[in-house]
Amino acid sequence: MKKTMLTHATVITANDQNEVIQDGAVGFEGAGITYVGPTPDDLSGYDEVIDLKGDYVLPGFINTHGHAGMSLLRGYADDLPLQQWLEDKMWPLEAQFTSEHVKWGTYISLIEMIRTGTTTFVDMYDHMDEVAKAVQASGMRARLCRGMIGLCSEEERQAKLRDAVSFAREWHNQADGRVTVMMAPHAPYTCPPEFITQIVEKAEELSLPIHIHMSETEWEVGQNVKDYGVRPVAHLEKLGVFNRPTLLAHAVHLTDEEIDVLANYHVKVSHNVVSNLKLASGVAPVPKMLAKGIHVSLGTDSSASNNNLNLFEELKLAAILHKGVNNDPVAVPAEEALRMATRYGAEGVFQPDTLGTIETGKQADLIVLDSHQAHFHPAHDPVSHVVYAANGRDVKDTIVAGSFLMRNRELLTVDEERVIFEANRMFQQLKR
Amino acid sequence: MKKTMLTHATVITANDQNEVIQDGAVGFEGAGITYVGPTPDDLSGYDEVIDLKGDYVLPGFINTHGHAGMSLLRGYADDLPLQQWLEDKMWPLEAQFTSEHVKWGTYISLIEMIRTGTTTFVDMYDHMDEVAKAVQASGMRARLCRGMIGLCSEEERQAKLRDAVSFAREWHNQADGRVTVMMAPHAPYTCPPEFITQIVEKAEELSLPIHIHMSETEWEVGQNVKDYGVRPVAHLEKLGVFNRPTLLAHAVHLTDEEIDVLANYHVKVSHNVVSNLKLASGVAPVPKMLAKGIHVSLGTDSSASNNNLNLFEELKLAAILHKGVNNDPVAVPAEEALRMATRYGAEGVFQPDTLGTIETGKQADLIVLDSHQAHFHPAHDPVSHVVYAANGRDVKDTIVAGSFLMRNRELLTVDEERVIFEANRMFQQLKR
Ligand SMILES: [Zn+2]
Ligand SMILES: [Zn+2]
Repeated sequence: MKKTMLTHATVITANDQNEVIQDGAVGFEGAGITYVGPTPDDLSGYDEVIDLKGDYVLPGFINTHGHAGMSLLRGYADDLPLQQWLEDKMWPLEAQFTSEHVKWGTYISLIEMIRTGTTTFVDMYDHMDEVAKAVQASGMRARLCRGMIGLCSEEERQAKLRDAVSFAREWHNQADGRVTVMMAPHAPYTCPPEFITQIVEKAEELSLPIHIHMSETEWEVGQNVKDYGVRPVAHLEKLGVFNRPTLLAHAVHLTDEEIDVLANYHVKVSHNVVSNLKLASGVAPVPKMLAKGIHVSLGTDSSASNNNLNLFEELKLAAILHKGVNNDPVAVPAEEALRMATRYGAEGVFQPDTLGTIETGKQADLIVLDSHQAHFHPAHDPVSHVVYAANGRDVKDTIVAGSFLMRNRELLTVDEERVIFEANRMFQQLKR
Repeated sequence: MKKTMLTHATVITANDQNEVIQDGAVGFEGAGITYVGPTPDDLSGYDEVIDLKGDYVLPGFINTHGHAGMSLLRGYADDLPLQQWLEDKMWPLEAQFTSEHVKWGTYISLIEMIRTGTTTFVDMYDHMDEVAKAVQASGMRARLCRGMIGLCSEEERQAKLRDAVSFAREWHNQADGRVTVMMAPHAPYTCPPEFITQIVEKAEELSLPIHIHMSETEWEVGQNVKDYGVRPVAHLEKLGVFNRPTLLAHAVHLTDEEIDVLANYHVKVSHNVVSNLKLASGVAPVPKMLAKGIHVSLGTDSSASNNNLNLFEELKLAAILHKGVNNDPVAVPAEEALRMATRYGAEGVFQPDTLGTIETGKQADLIVLDSHQAHFHPAHDPVSHVVYAANGRDVKDTIVAGSFLMRNRELLTVDEERVIFEANRMFQQLKR
């Protein structure tokens, strides 16, 4: 197996000690990291040695919630309330989506993520075969879910569930383990309780985690109380969802008691800060969740409500927003925000042993930031610069499982020009 | 004079009709725009014709509040309350600043702004000769102020005022008109009332506007009430500040009555959304101010509280934050946010007749965004893409007064490598 060494780098490990190694090096062999430490004198054992001249190396970012296919709808409907945006704009166009639409929407998303330093993403959508194939071909890592909206006939619900199960059987742990699967009831307000119970049973049978939207809007929480007499956390608890490892998207509207329940069940939360603001959903109680030990990671949601997949925006905003709205200048300090983008993300995809930090034995999912730019200077505090000054566009190399997907900003596994062409073609076909 | 034409562009004019011209063109001769419209068939009258192949052309962005020299302190002190950050961290280091520190800090800032599409900036600092010389040499446009903190002896205050006046006499309307000046008492809580009155008198004498920080923190408002019996707006009104054209930085903590007073005096406001969140100052009532017709523009504040000068971050955040915290998904729609970065910025620097839109007769302050990237597609709504999907790093060309300061991402007027070297050297000299 090829042995590669990145040398003379500023290595931001995100390990337990928040170690930053100046003039550091990261070695990897095949998919795995084999060396982390100072740049060694003897580099003779390596097939390729890349001198990074002080550039930053970080764990690849983990985007724990999104709908990659929806990048096809970027900018199609802005500045609208969530329910209207979803029901009048998104759903009618999505109803026209074929696997071809999902394929090219997903490829647009893959390009954005690779270019801005995301190495693992969670996706909840339909036509997931296309998504999995695109992930496999692009070299990315993803945790994929066939999203199931239950607002349809029982027959259709069962067809969706069968589809989700066969997708899981076909794709879980495929693409050299880069593709894994979760089971995804769309949301409490879009799935009848029995449907959620059935999905949980299947998840148990398949030993898969659950991914679900929850408490994104105040409206939805009220609806839950009206329909089922309890708020969403109690509702999902009763349905047995939290007996499975669970990743919640949003979790904006929570009581302190609900936060305690989530903490007790070790439920993971994906904080979609840009999308929540843009859709006027509100501000999630992130400092409270973090204080209770909940692993809160970062998600972009889709480009239709963001409108890009540049996780560096979520990183900075998670670090500054909760300071501003809670009148607390020490809320979510830089190191904690960086953990949300990396190791808490690894918890969010239930792979903390292999992802999320730069440590020997973990997967070589790495990104390199070009620090030879004015906004990285004076070169005082690398973690601060990553969180507060950098941008996804500073990523020059993206490495997943030891393979370069982007090198010196050149994409190596996806044809960007073709993808842009096809995405526009597919969008123009839709009836609006 | 050289005649240049940008052709086959998506021209986002930001004019009264919010016109976006597909396959458009912008011509300029010397410093001024001479043509805006469809790409003409006959281009024979032009010395240089640049085919933009669909790339976006916008008015250069206007950053209406900052302290360029402070980029030297980027990342030096994060995650602290404003007063502690200012008094324990910033001021002791700034007290050591020589003109050499300000020079290289400013050059770092100039590079960041040119690279991310800012063509005019407001600066309030000390050693302003260095700032003006750097603006002149770099080709940028700026409205510069010798900031005056009055927490010192009467003798020192008078020395500062003399310095401000002589700076104004020397530099106002210099560098082919690219450098203009304002008079800047630092803030109500850092200047005794008589000092503010004296500054206003000098501003009147020199026919210059006033630039001042106001109501950034709750603490500062309470202090004003304690010291002077009224809130800051009434205080500054009484001191005659608003009889001059005035640009306020921050204006976070305002009552409805204060907003009415500001609107009546046509006071301009610089909204520093990233800095206000990071320092936990709060969220300014931007939708209310805009509804009253106040020209609210965007400012980065300094890299010490941001921590960069990429105004695209302020643009997107101004568009999404006020939706999220006001539970109003139509607050600050994309077109309004874009006006804040452009034409309202021109109002903020009191040059609405020459800056802020792409119209014949205005200055050729233009930026070109590389739209041949995945996150600009599908190419449905250019204004949405600029506000919600783009980033300052998409800027490929920056033009001020008809001259290219950056072309195809290559800086033409500043030596980036040298500046980075000198900025690090100057930072390391400081006693910490
Ligand atoms: Zn979602
Ligand atoms: Zn300021």
